[in-house]
Amino acid sequence: MTFRAEEIEQILKRLENVPGLEGSALVSSDGFMLASSLPPDISEDRVAAMGAAMVSVAERVNKELGRGRFELAIISGGDGYTLATEVGVDAILIVLASKTAKLGLVFYEVRRAAEDLARALGR
Amino acid sequence: MTFRAEEIEQILKRLENVPGLEGSALVSSDGFMLASSLPPDISEDRVAAMGAAMVSVAERVNKELGRGRFELAIISGGDGYTLATEVGVDAILIVLASKTAKLGLVFYEVRRAAEDLARALGR
Repeated sequence: MTFRAEEIEQILKRLENVPGLEGSALVSSDGFMLASSLPPDISEDRVAAMGAAMVSVAERVNKELGRGRFELAIISGGDGYTLATEVGVDAILIVLASKTAKLGLVFYEVRRAAEDLARALGR
Repeated sequence: MTFRAEEIEQILKRLENVPGLEGSALVSSDGFMLASSLPPDISEDRVAAMGAAMVSVAERVNKELGRGRFELAIISGGDGYTLATEVGVDAILIVLASKTAKLGLVFYEVRRAAEDLARALGR
């Protein structure tokens, strides 16, 4: 595995240019933080744990309801969105966005970042 | 509580007109089926359980990451989407859609159905 840390950080930083996007984190599928660009009031550990919980439930739902393999999970709350998406085979990109974010644009940029991150992780 | 069963069934049937929408179910927040319009190969019990699991994780994520109260959760798999949304204070609408569905249109119709269902449940 070639882990290109600088490139990964640049990809996470680039995501911050998306209007309404508040922060992002790259987490291993077993819940360990690989890299992050998060607001100071958000705990890295908490984001890693919540991302792993989202993917775990999403994989179960997909299996039980015949929806195929995991791609993306989105949770919309009254004060913002949380997205989790697969990066290669064993990492997860978690993104926090405000309610003012244009969800279509966030999807697009998150998917693009996930592809670039998979390459940077050497997958 | 006034439970208008016929009206509820009509709202779920109406959702079937949305292109790509495969089925829907109204489930109590403790995981019991209230009404459904599902394809024959999808088990009601499984949908109820998966809907409750999605909302449970979504509420936890929203709380831990300061995202406000639960509104909607979406899981995208290689073979289709699963959506879960609140209906009033203690019911959940679960919707299955194919990958050909226009997600924006599905969101719109699901939100409208959730409002109508909340009224039909007497909330």
